[in-house]
Amino acid sequence: MELQRPYQLFLGDVKDRLAAKTAQGIAQWRPELCIGQTRMAGCEADLGLPDLSLKEAYEKDARTLIIGIANRGGTLSEKWVPLLIEALTIGFDLASGLHMRLGDHPDIWEAATNTGRRLIDIRHCGKQFEVANGIKRSGRRLLTVGTDCSVGKMYTTLALEREMQERGLKVTFRATGQTGIFIAGSGVPVDAIVSDFVAGAVEHLTPAGEADHWDLIEGQGSLYHASYAGVSLGLLHGAQPDALVLCHEPGRPHMRGLQQFPLPSLEACIATNLAMARLTNPAVKCVGISFNTQNLPEVEAKRLIAETEERLGLPVVDPLATGVGAIVDKLMVTA
Amino acid sequence: MELQRPYQLFLGDVKDRLAAKTAQGIAQWRPELCIGQTRMAGCEADLGLPDLSLKEAYEKDARTLIIGIANRGGTLSEKWVPLLIEALTIGFDLASGLHMRLGDHPDIWEAATNTGRRLIDIRHCGKQFEVANGIKRSGRRLLTVGTDCSVGKMYTTLALEREMQERGLKVTFRATGQTGIFIAGSGVPVDAIVSDFVAGAVEHLTPAGEADHWDLIEGQGSLYHASYAGVSLGLLHGAQPDALVLCHEPGRPHMRGLQQFPLPSLEACIATNLAMARLTNPAVKCVGISFNTQNLPEVEAKRLIAETEERLGLPVVDPLATGVGAIVDKLMVTA
Repeated sequence: MELQRPYQLFLGDVKDRLAAKTAQGIAQWRPELCIGQTRMAGCEADLGLPDLSLKEAYEKDARTLIIGIANRGGTLSEKWVPLLIEALTIGFDLASGLHMRLGDHPDIWEAATNTGRRLIDIRHCGKQFEVANGIKRSGRRLLTVGTDCSVGKMYTTLALEREMQERGLKVTFRATGQTGIFIAGSGVPVDAIVSDFVAGAVEHLTPAGEADHWDLIEGQGSLYHASYAGVSLGLLHGAQPDALVLCHEPGRPHMRGLQQFPLPSLEACIATNLAMARLTNPAVKCVGISFNTQNLPEVEAKRLIAETEERLGLPVVDPLATGVGAIVDKLMVTA
Repeated sequence: MELQRPYQLFLGDVKDRLAAKTAQGIAQWRPELCIGQTRMAGCEADLGLPDLSLKEAYEKDARTLIIGIANRGGTLSEKWVPLLIEALTIGFDLASGLHMRLGDHPDIWEAATNTGRRLIDIRHCGKQFEVANGIKRSGRRLLTVGTDCSVGKMYTTLALEREMQERGLKVTFRATGQTGIFIAGSGVPVDAIVSDFVAGAVEHLTPAGEADHWDLIEGQGSLYHASYAGVSLGLLHGAQPDALVLCHEPGRPHMRGLQQFPLPSLEACIATNLAMARLTNPAVKCVGISFNTQNLPEVEAKRLIAETEERLGLPVVDPLATGVGAIVDKLMVTA
């Protein structure tokens, strides 16, 4: 799926910043693609972008209105519908990461049909993929993996993209989740693909490339997450990574959503990911660890990073606090 | 999905036995559920069941007409359509394991709507499942796993069911593929489930049970298959098996459909399955090996079984040649 750029971000009437998490990720990582934000009365999120009416945004060349909302249940509010229909009439495509399909709303469906505009449901991938063939592709690939869900895999991958671009390296960010797809403008929502085709969809997402080009692939879930490990394994096999970066949030009390499951050790998690990844790329290496230390005191974070580097003999970073330069240094030497 | 029983098996005009593989599996493992077969002119498959017209079969109480055909591409032949519509008119539900949906054919859809009969597409599971919660369920579970696809996991599971039933043990066969679902009359086609929900669908398939009851769960794919390992891992985690049986076809030259991938050793395959399974059931054990030796000379098969038993210290069987009694013996002692 490919989105027309640039974007106008629709925040509706959401009551807090977290509900606009998807829009916030886009604004943070692709400010150059965001013309402005459209907020309704009562909206309490603010991305710091210009507040524009739909007409104004369209006149400034915005072409896709993104419903950048991640509310509980993923539902579409009736209150938003008049504005969404207005957007179609003005000439916008609509793109949504909600569970509910845009086209399942009869008035939106009718407006899209009448105007010839596209309704793009990022979570519902209509595309048919081939089953993976496992054949090694040219070009280099890095995949972020995690001890758990929501530990910073997308942020780490995007930080690596920025750092490697600044060094003049050839890189492409490959998105596998809804926010990542909005940021990249294309991608494959792997957790929404029929299980038989996950590895094949990832082979399609990251095709053969030039020998010195790096695909930087956003990871999903964790091999240690009892709900989603199958998704992570299909992604790992399809990605055929040359390099893994392990992402982790120190101090997390248990696996996300699974109170009785402790987090794996970094050592076990690296060993298992390498062992499973070798099936489709025997040369795979782990090139670093990425911590999300936002909830730790700075002194504690620094101590933990130094201690982990010492223990594992790998660069350990926090993308926001230290940058990811140390991992790129290692990548250039070893992978 | 639940099917009305008993069944009439529709073989269409297929040109060979292999194309009727699904019907053959049903007739072999559930002859008591099969009233007869309906064959069109030119059909060259024969299950050895009575040849009955649809009317005759319905009068003998058959209630679901199963399209027991596994042709290349999974397409529905226009030649079958008049008979399928006749079946709906007589009062049959239609059930199919084809890729193409029955309801996508406008005439079949119309006939089903007019008669109020059900169209059941085994490969297209409309049901929404919860994400897996990983919480340990009561009752015992055995899962067949494989070195590869199509090595006899369903046959082994059904042979274990028969043997354990004969010993008066409480067992239920849990189907995860299309032929298995027709045989069981219900099940979950795991390879057709959206990846995020595979482990959750398996938790749903094999719910909490009595302490001395065994769910015998049909495995899919292999952790060593580069196309499908993610499906196998989701199934493994959702199943929470107490016992694994490893299925293997000796002499296979490479992984099915993947010429450059050799088969794993039995030792590696057991170790990897146990290591990954421990996430949701730390007490998991491997209780035996099941060979498919149909393509080996009998002497060679016997030698290989004896040698493998010696090497691994586990019972090794061929469900058709030796029966699976030795694995059930082991299961009763160790799991």
